[in-house]
Amino acid sequence: MKPITEVAARLGLEMDQLELYGKWKAKLSEDVWESISHRPDGKLILVTAMNPTPAGEGKTLTTIGLTQGLNRIGRKAAAALREPSLGPCMGMKGGATGSGKAQIVPAEDINLHFTGDIHAITSAHNLLAALIDNHIFQGNDLRLDPARIVWKRALDMNDRPLRQIVIGIGDNNGTVREDGFLISTASEVMAVLCLAENMDDLRERLSRIVVAYDMDKRPVTAGELRAVDAMCALLKDAIHPNLVQTIEGDPVFVHGGPFANIAHGCSSIRATRHALKLADYVVTEAGFGADLGAEKFMDIKCRMGNLHPAAAVIVATVRALKYNGGVPKQELLTENAEAIHTGFSNLRRHVENMRTFGVPVIVAINRFAADTEAELAQVMGLCAELGVKAIVSDAWELGGEGCRELAQEVAELADGSAEDTFQLLYPDDMPITEKIETIVTRIYRGAGVKYRPAARRALQELERLGVRDLPVCMAKTPYSFTDRPAELGAPEQFTIEVQDVRWSAGAGFVVVLTGKVVTMPGLPEEPAAWRIKLNEAGHIEGLS
Amino acid sequence: MKPITEVAARLGLEMDQLELYGKWKAKLSEDVWESISHRPDGKLILVTAMNPTPAGEGKTLTTIGLTQGLNRIGRKAAAALREPSLGPCMGMKGGATGSGKAQIVPAEDINLHFTGDIHAITSAHNLLAALIDNHIFQGNDLRLDPARIVWKRALDMNDRPLRQIVIGIGDNNGTVREDGFLISTASEVMAVLCLAENMDDLRERLSRIVVAYDMDKRPVTAGELRAVDAMCALLKDAIHPNLVQTIEGDPVFVHGGPFANIAHGCSSIRATRHALKLADYVVTEAGFGADLGAEKFMDIKCRMGNLHPAAAVIVATVRALKYNGGVPKQELLTENAEAIHTGFSNLRRHVENMRTFGVPVIVAINRFAADTEAELAQVMGLCAELGVKAIVSDAWELGGEGCRELAQEVAELADGSAEDTFQLLYPDDMPITEKIETIVTRIYRGAGVKYRPAARRALQELERLGVRDLPVCMAKTPYSFTDRPAELGAPEQFTIEVQDVRWSAGAGFVVVLTGKVVTMPGLPEEPAAWRIKLNEAGHIEGLS
Repeated sequence: MKPITEVAARLGLEMDQLELYGKWKAKLSEDVWESISHRPDGKLILVTAMNPTPAGEGKTLTTIGLTQGLNRIGRKAAAALREPSLGPCMGMKGGATGSGKAQIVPAEDINLHFTGDIHAITSAHNLLAALIDNHIFQGNDLRLDPARIVWKRALDMNDRPLRQIVIGIGDNNGTVREDGFLISTASEVMAVLCLAENMDDLRERLSRIVVAYDMDKRPVTAGELRAVDAMCALLKDAIHPNLVQTIEGDPVFVHGGPFANIAHGCSSIRATRHALKLADYVVTEAGFGADLGAEKFMDIKCRMGNLHPAAAVIVATVRALKYNGGVPKQELLTENAEAIHTGFSNLRRHVENMRTFGVPVIVAINRFAADTEAELAQVMGLCAELGVKAIVSDAWELGGEGCRELAQEVAELADGSAEDTFQLLYPDDMPITEKIETIVTRIYRGAGVKYRPAARRALQELERLGVRDLPVCMAKTPYSFTDRPAELGAPEQFTIEVQDVRWSAGAGFVVVLTGKVVTMPGLPEEPAAWRIKLNEAGHIEGLS
Repeated sequence: MKPITEVAARLGLEMDQLELYGKWKAKLSEDVWESISHRPDGKLILVTAMNPTPAGEGKTLTTIGLTQGLNRIGRKAAAALREPSLGPCMGMKGGATGSGKAQIVPAEDINLHFTGDIHAITSAHNLLAALIDNHIFQGNDLRLDPARIVWKRALDMNDRPLRQIVIGIGDNNGTVREDGFLISTASEVMAVLCLAENMDDLRERLSRIVVAYDMDKRPVTAGELRAVDAMCALLKDAIHPNLVQTIEGDPVFVHGGPFANIAHGCSSIRATRHALKLADYVVTEAGFGADLGAEKFMDIKCRMGNLHPAAAVIVATVRALKYNGGVPKQELLTENAEAIHTGFSNLRRHVENMRTFGVPVIVAINRFAADTEAELAQVMGLCAELGVKAIVSDAWELGGEGCRELAQEVAELADGSAEDTFQLLYPDDMPITEKIETIVTRIYRGAGVKYRPAARRALQELERLGVRDLPVCMAKTPYSFTDRPAELGAPEQFTIEVQDVRWSAGAGFVVVLTGKVVTMPGLPEEPAAWRIKLNEAGHIEGLS
């Protein structure tokens, strides 16, 4: 690892433009933006993927490897990634900082407390929750309906029994009511932080958050509860982007990590915008596959941040193609040209979708040891038929060196792109239901949308409240274009069933739920926490 | 403010012995201890107080002012203070970083997230809680009795309705059971962190924490739940002492802040021990008045840390003496020699108690604007009769300059003290009930102890489990020597009623409850959070 001051120097940042967190982490100082905002933007490159499979595609790995590769071929590139949440590190998945020779460091810090952003979000979230119940306890001047408090509490821990709880039991402990905890990354405060342009915008958005309804069904906001100034105080450092590095010493902004279902799943607009002023190429990623992640990246993050992606990289693997071609998980290591051919339908649809947004696209084939040359050639051939380049990426085994070709092609694609070809899928003022139908028919390629009664009622309520000009945030299984996880490949003639609709007034989108979304994970039978330990040298083992 | 590297340099610490958290905060690096442990210790000075009153005595203020004063008169002095918890800053009390010209800075950071220690403690605490419920959910091999889970959850927020809750409601969310949240500073993890000598000791103590009882009434520990390695990983930075400064640039260690009722209420042993190697005088404080705070400081912190206080400073105020003499709060500004004379009984008893521990004692009269010269002279006269010096402290108005005389006297007292005069109140191997009686009769000066049935049962249980050689941690009202807050002055012939007894096996003490202890505060009608805001300059207002 290089001292973070050295990494920052590559971006032209000086010591006094950083807030150091030890030797290997820093936040950009508050005044950096003012000194760089006049500069032209670098090229924004989105790394997305085909629908995720149990085998894992390596989207973060490719994002990091591509950044390393761009720097290897002499381009000034930085990555902009989400920050991992501590809770899930204790559960199934371990860390989220890449692997092999494409990693970001210091992984043990980034995966756990990092610079405290998520703790700050948890604090701000729970302050608001405490102020709501205290408002009722102290007399309830705003006439909040205790049965319609929609703001839950939050904790950064996988903790199943906190999903649904009853609070306020006992003598004089407040109103007894049902409540629950979200994992902190599912907090609307996280989405707000990631979409806010600056502190003023953050304050505005926090003020708009709807926390409850009163006895007349009027939405009551965080602003009315006088929570916002203190929440901003708690978030004063969290709003500043964090800088770390790849294991090859390239600059990486790691900032914000909202859920990819009930939120938009992208790192912060602020980090991306800072990075675009400081580097010529900024590689970023979005959660899940391109149907969910890239669509939200474009229609939510780029819309709100006025960003124009210059290229999209779709990560595919031979294994994922076979899986989408109907091969069960345990047989993915066997050559199967027919399955690849069938499964390619999935990748094809994602490629076409990127074109719908007017974004130049390239496929990165993330190589696994068992992949044969014949298989890789087959995928490249199929891509060529589609008019899209497919480049093999060896990020895991070789790091940046294994991504030289990919980097070269991506840089050329981005350099040749014109800003004005990019287009959002729908305009702001399209009615909510039409937006949903547009996404379903044009991106998922379903036949239409059905609404359950709860969803219909929720949409009527939004209509009544005049909520219309917001983008929609789809919460759908990431495994399929449909709302049924087992329907792989490129299904057609299906209907998406909307279960419920929720208003994230602070984030500024309407969440469309097409299934049950768990916003508080549980721990598995063998929690990753059992493997995590501090070794003799003072380093943490077992995080990845 | 000076850069923290400059403050550290005054202690002989170099840049590479620090982990910087921005420009104004640092943690001592892991390897500092090894390089200083061979040095002789400086003099340890405890600042304590007479029983607290609603008017406020200024114990933290005096601790900071005295540190500033010692440096003014050319002594190399540092303070060792508790770190404030974020939750209470949002409630009644605002910040806890001194006031007037005796403050520690940066106050806005210290009062809120600081270097993340309390967030790390919260995470470690809740990981353990999640592992307990997950253990039951995944089959309950250890046969935990869901009705006897004694490990609650924790949050650093004043949140009344979380005191008593029901968790695990809903489909497949685990066992439905009653639970509750503590504020994080009441977590046994906090007490453990403050008492641990190093990471090995921390691991040992965490392993011993009793989290539940099994169906055979056997205590089950955090170690058995395999939680401890990951907890240590989460606490890897939190264990290192934090360095900040007074507004006059003097070094201050701010590390750990356990509750002063169900825990011992002192900053960390590690910070104190580091400070003693780096400065010639270390000024520290303990929670509440001397009956609770100083007693626990001696019998818990000094016992476990093998520390020898060289002097005790008892903070008194004219107002507190009048209040203890029976004057109501609203009449405290009126001269009243008789009330001072009566109320002096309270101060006298605390002075005598310090002598019981063999610690040289001095009284600091924290001056308030309304105090008259006659009143101050009267207090000094009464102290003189008792053979103890009383020095007026002007820390609030004049900072270190206003504490020169106090500093001079304290330094001389400490210089002249002999280590071997210090004695603990009771030996380790005294039976628990005898320890309780010793504290009640020799420190509080009560006639004896009564036990409620729950306390009696708990003591029998400890007997059965062979728990005997631990110090006791009294949880009693801080306002009186008795267990009834309204009994001011120096009551006699009273009995202390023990309601319950709890075993903190990790911290290594037995908590003796003499009343209802609230371990999760609520927010008041006008929460301090309403006043806290980020101003245009990016600074937080309303914290003090």
